[in-house]
Amino acid sequence: MNEFAQGAAWMAGDILPIAEARISVLDWGLTHSDITYDVVPVWNGAFFRLPDYLERFRQSVDTLKLTIPQTDAEITEILHRIVAASGLREAYVAMVASRGVPLIPGSRDPRDCGNHFYAWVIPYVHVIKPEVADRGCHLWISKGSRRIPEDSVNPRAKNYHWGDFTTGLLEAKERGFDTTALLDHHGNVTEGPGFNVFALKGDTVVTSDHGVLHGLTRRTVIELCQARDLTVETRPLPLSELLEADEVFLSTSSGGAVPVARVDDRVFSNDAPGPVAKTLRADYFALLERGEMSQPVRY
Amino acid sequence: MNEFAQGAAWMAGDILPIAEARISVLDWGLTHSDITYDVVPVWNGAFFRLPDYLERFRQSVDTLKLTIPQTDAEITEILHRIVAASGLREAYVAMVASRGVPLIPGSRDPRDCGNHFYAWVIPYVHVIKPEVADRGCHLWISKGSRRIPEDSVNPRAKNYHWGDFTTGLLEAKERGFDTTALLDHHGNVTEGPGFNVFALKGDTVVTSDHGVLHGLTRRTVIELCQARDLTVETRPLPLSELLEADEVFLSTSSGGAVPVARVDDRVFSNDAPGPVAKTLRADYFALLERGEMSQPVRY
Repeated sequence: MNEFAQGAAWMAGDILPIAEARISVLDWGLTHSDITYDVVPVWNGAFFRLPDYLERFRQSVDTLKLTIPQTDAEITEILHRIVAASGLREAYVAMVASRGVPLIPGSRDPRDCGNHFYAWVIPYVHVIKPEVADRGCHLWISKGSRRIPEDSVNPRAKNYHWGDFTTGLLEAKERGFDTTALLDHHGNVTEGPGFNVFALKGDTVVTSDHGVLHGLTRRTVIELCQARDLTVETRPLPLSELLEADEVFLSTSSGGAVPVARVDDRVFSNDAPGPVAKTLRADYFALLERGEMSQPVRY
Repeated sequence: MNEFAQGAAWMAGDILPIAEARISVLDWGLTHSDITYDVVPVWNGAFFRLPDYLERFRQSVDTLKLTIPQTDAEITEILHRIVAASGLREAYVAMVASRGVPLIPGSRDPRDCGNHFYAWVIPYVHVIKPEVADRGCHLWISKGSRRIPEDSVNPRAKNYHWGDFTTGLLEAKERGFDTTALLDHHGNVTEGPGFNVFALKGDTVVTSDHGVLHGLTRRTVIELCQARDLTVETRPLPLSELLEADEVFLSTSSGGAVPVARVDDRVFSNDAPGPVAKTLRADYFALLERGEMSQPVRY
């Protein structure tokens, strides 16, 4: 049995079994959620869009004014090494930069902390399970929780501030829904925990451009829509417009375009995946299969 | 040399040196900031207001729908044991409850996680250093960061969602200020990283009642104000009112009432601590000294 089969991590130069990958309870990445990350999927033994994920990770690191010594080439090497150690062919690969602990004991100045990088891999985690995507996801619009505004925490620096999502998720699960999406403080649909939201009406697809992570699968799905001659509008998406859509779907790296069959008590496409969402989902897996945006793992 | 002199932690039944106290990189307490905590101060070998801190911690745990097996009596016993192990007479003692990792691998349902409790102690951390309190704190009102709203993340369940504070702190430090306070989205003063904010005008003291943690030192300072026959109003505090105050001060457990000498380019009390804030600060240390709300550590 490979000791890394359940996952592996790179921390401070060592490769560890995932169960031994831990950070200090004093690390500001934990105690101030002062940390950023990105997750690149490995499908069929290959990274998907790795340069794009690295570019976004670097932007997040810069936005938070973190400093890590690793170059993109070194991070790439680390990611290959941990996935190879795990032997995983379908994997969820995280790169993380944390503020660290104060190097001057007792300091409350973020500039006094020892920033650090680490990375880990585990077997693929489906944000929306394939069987849910097959029957059409049941999406709950949170009533009690609004998305953290952009001028409080910048959603484009991918972050672990998920309290708003967790409140919405608990509401959704208690009502038998699969997952949740949050409104902003003006009543527009933003995003959910791990996905962006799309509404199709006629030949036009709308997805929010604010209060959301600019997800790389969001970008992929936009490109797939354009390849199908759909018009894509990135702008605020009022809840009323979502509820009046012909189809609703979500973008997440594990499922591409995930069809939504229900939003609250609203039923779409006769309670089944809509035809456009199904086509886009198939397009996504065909793109993965072709491998033109993929980079084989060096096992 | 006591191996716990730099701090100690209780995790899963063991007492560890603080440097060995770590949590999994997969714990949702880290990856979703799905975690709550409280910090009780130890002064002169005694816990201050421990039952009040325990009560608030329990409320936070319940608000987040976390379940931990430890009773308040067991937590009390754990806190005594770690402080005794450290030998520290002035200490910062944290109790923490985290969502944990999914017990069903790959689950994205918060209800599937193994919640857990841990605690740690380190030498006292001053949110505002005593020498800063002595000359009067220089407070920066963040321009780029607004406090996370209550309907996104509940500030009364004490939490690690500090991204808004960190942005403000970096702004403050780059401008030579000691710390920052944030406005809400309506222009009212909320709180800063680790303290509440008070404005005195005549015989009336105002501190915000929303968008803030109901700090226990906030409560103590309110009680000390009332004992000095000041009228206390807990309500929204517009920035304009703060800037027109006779005195401004902050409440934080390490300093009681910390005088503020400057807010942005506004100078108070001839750039020195104001008389009322100085009196309240002295009252706080006298209260600690009397020990009537204290519980000696069982070393």
